[in-house]
Amino acid sequence: MTYTTSRVPNAPALDVSNAVEVLKEVLGPRSPVALHVPMFSGNEWTYVKECIDTGWVSSVGTFVDRFEKMLIEFTGAKYAIATVNGTAALHVCLLLAGVKPDDEVLLPALTFVATTNAVNYCHAVPHFVDSEESTLGLDPEKLSEYLADISVMRAGECFNKRTGRRIRAVVPMHTFGHPVDMDGLVPVCERFRLVMVEDAAESLGSYYRGQHTGNLGLVSSLSFNGNKTVTTGGGGAILTNDPTLGPLAKHLTTTARIPHKWSFKHDRVGYNYRMPNINAALGCAQLEQLPRFLSLKRALTSRYVEAFKPVLGVGVFQERADCRSNYWLNALVLDRDDIEARDRLLEMSNEKGIGTRPVWTLSHRLPMYSDCPAMDLGVAESLERRIINIPSSAELGTRYV
Amino acid sequence: MTYTTSRVPNAPALDVSNAVEVLKEVLGPRSPVALHVPMFSGNEWTYVKECIDTGWVSSVGTFVDRFEKMLIEFTGAKYAIATVNGTAALHVCLLLAGVKPDDEVLLPALTFVATTNAVNYCHAVPHFVDSEESTLGLDPEKLSEYLADISVMRAGECFNKRTGRRIRAVVPMHTFGHPVDMDGLVPVCERFRLVMVEDAAESLGSYYRGQHTGNLGLVSSLSFNGNKTVTTGGGGAILTNDPTLGPLAKHLTTTARIPHKWSFKHDRVGYNYRMPNINAALGCAQLEQLPRFLSLKRALTSRYVEAFKPVLGVGVFQERADCRSNYWLNALVLDRDDIEARDRLLEMSNEKGIGTRPVWTLSHRLPMYSDCPAMDLGVAESLERRIINIPSSAELGTRYV
Repeated sequence: MTYTTSRVPNAPALDVSNAVEVLKEVLGPRSPVALHVPMFSGNEWTYVKECIDTGWVSSVGTFVDRFEKMLIEFTGAKYAIATVNGTAALHVCLLLAGVKPDDEVLLPALTFVATTNAVNYCHAVPHFVDSEESTLGLDPEKLSEYLADISVMRAGECFNKRTGRRIRAVVPMHTFGHPVDMDGLVPVCERFRLVMVEDAAESLGSYYRGQHTGNLGLVSSLSFNGNKTVTTGGGGAILTNDPTLGPLAKHLTTTARIPHKWSFKHDRVGYNYRMPNINAALGCAQLEQLPRFLSLKRALTSRYVEAFKPVLGVGVFQERADCRSNYWLNALVLDRDDIEARDRLLEMSNEKGIGTRPVWTLSHRLPMYSDCPAMDLGVAESLERRIINIPSSAELGTRYV
Repeated sequence: MTYTTSRVPNAPALDVSNAVEVLKEVLGPRSPVALHVPMFSGNEWTYVKECIDTGWVSSVGTFVDRFEKMLIEFTGAKYAIATVNGTAALHVCLLLAGVKPDDEVLLPALTFVATTNAVNYCHAVPHFVDSEESTLGLDPEKLSEYLADISVMRAGECFNKRTGRRIRAVVPMHTFGHPVDMDGLVPVCERFRLVMVEDAAESLGSYYRGQHTGNLGLVSSLSFNGNKTVTTGGGGAILTNDPTLGPLAKHLTTTARIPHKWSFKHDRVGYNYRMPNINAALGCAQLEQLPRFLSLKRALTSRYVEAFKPVLGVGVFQERADCRSNYWLNALVLDRDDIEARDRLLEMSNEKGIGTRPVWTLSHRLPMYSDCPAMDLGVAESLERRIINIPSSAELGTRYV
């Protein structure tokens, strides 16, 4: 299959060799350069050693509590619950949002498979939504028109006329750290009575109109996987401002055990999703450096933007004027729908030791989700053929000597 | 409710104060003494530091591979796949065993809630089985008689006549490290065509007739939670000798991503269940010390056994002649069904800084599982009223000075 339709009318073709040269210019003599690696330049050792020396490495410990307090302080959310990873966090978020088996959950087709898997873990049905060019996230206007067409309200709940299933929630995912158009999405949720669950796995340090992402949904999930802006090895967190759901999130992620000096009673199906203390120790040290990481990443993006200005047929994706992105992963976006140019750039850059990758295969094209309901996904499909992620580690923001 | 039926005819009542004195005698001047804490006396810090220094803390790294190799060497299993915890490992084991939604899975009512939850995660139905006095594990003979009564074989599969559901698997759990009667269970599995999934969360270092536990089922799960014989903070593993299921377990626990230089394609619903490298680094150091931990724990048990010999009405649970237990948690077992004596012992010992606890509340009495099918659970119910776990850390096996 060959795609060479033009997104930008008469867009020029990309000179792939030149683009690779520009990347090399920005990255300097470092080689090879990975797509994203963590930076351990703070108290990582000190805290982890303290953790080992005291013996408190597991699911109870002072670093987990401290990590959660730091997240609350940084994001402004009222509750933060540290989990074993971002997928686990999102799974519990969906349960907290009242997603039941056989419900449908709206989410972008353009996301990492974990978003879609989390819906599956609830035995609910993913329902794929298109993305928009200006945010790389879910398109609220297109969603609204689509829902007006395919849904019906019954007793204050939204139902899919075609499948008969209840549509319970919508999961905006802030792609590469760029916030979804929340002012557009909130009224859609209100109109169709959808619970909003933010997948903020990629957007720690990203702000929508001054507010940290993860604060606009009923609940939201963060990720601290090894490739994220800050890492705990593996880890995630649930954020919420809801005084009922905060404690409930903690309860569900700690096997739903009823607190007692010694007895082991559990009052509902719970999960072994608590972040171990040793991972939280690493996380505390990483969070202390987050402002520095963010400014280094921002410096790197500026250099990419400058360097690619003269390059025809491609742009560096930038934040909208009313948002502040963490620039977790920088993205080149081709002007033309030209998957061959994309693949040549991927081949050539990786051959030269520059870690690049395409965006995730759209979820509706994965075999296990190919039968799920979906709206027209024209923009997501085009973006999939045009996006190339380029090296984005904070460390690359420091000037090489 | 008061229970004071006698398990042992005319069993004498326990002198609770005396029992607490005996515990104090064995534990010496240490105070307080927790039920089980880890011992970090080897290369923990060296390995974890190496992990941080190289930046490989997350889901890919040399320590995860090394940890798996060490597990293979120690247990004799052909494949070991490190996971984020034991619950995750058991969940995937059940999927590998072909457990489908609405199947029934046989498991002991006397187990930690995670065993039962893992069945629930597959949207299968737990079906509770009684335990036996001599192993504290599932009773194969009673199970066999029960299945002969309530099941029917159709096209080589076992169905519950009462519910109409398929009974797919049985999960023996090796309580406190004491192996289930496997010679009794294997023919039951053959007769009723049940897949055996071993929950070996508590039995790393336990042997059934010379073979390490976890090798007799089709697949099995281990746990390295903070309270286990060796710990990775939080962690688990899947063991199997099956050449198809080994690689499939790895695939399922790493989001089912198809290996490729850069593309992100996944061919089935997968899980973010991979153990992070930093946790595996801790685990490698711990496994190096496992033989020493086992001998320390054994020394502690001998001291408990000696000390409690003259105490009427209670015994220290010991391994069967043909098994070798890791003695993960030592257990006192009251001769009489006397929950009041049990509770007084729990109260008094904990007050004096000695960490003791009862066994888990039986799963069929937890609200979310109270409607599940169950056989007569008389022995498990009696054991629940008679078991008290006492401090069992390896470190307590060293003689105090």
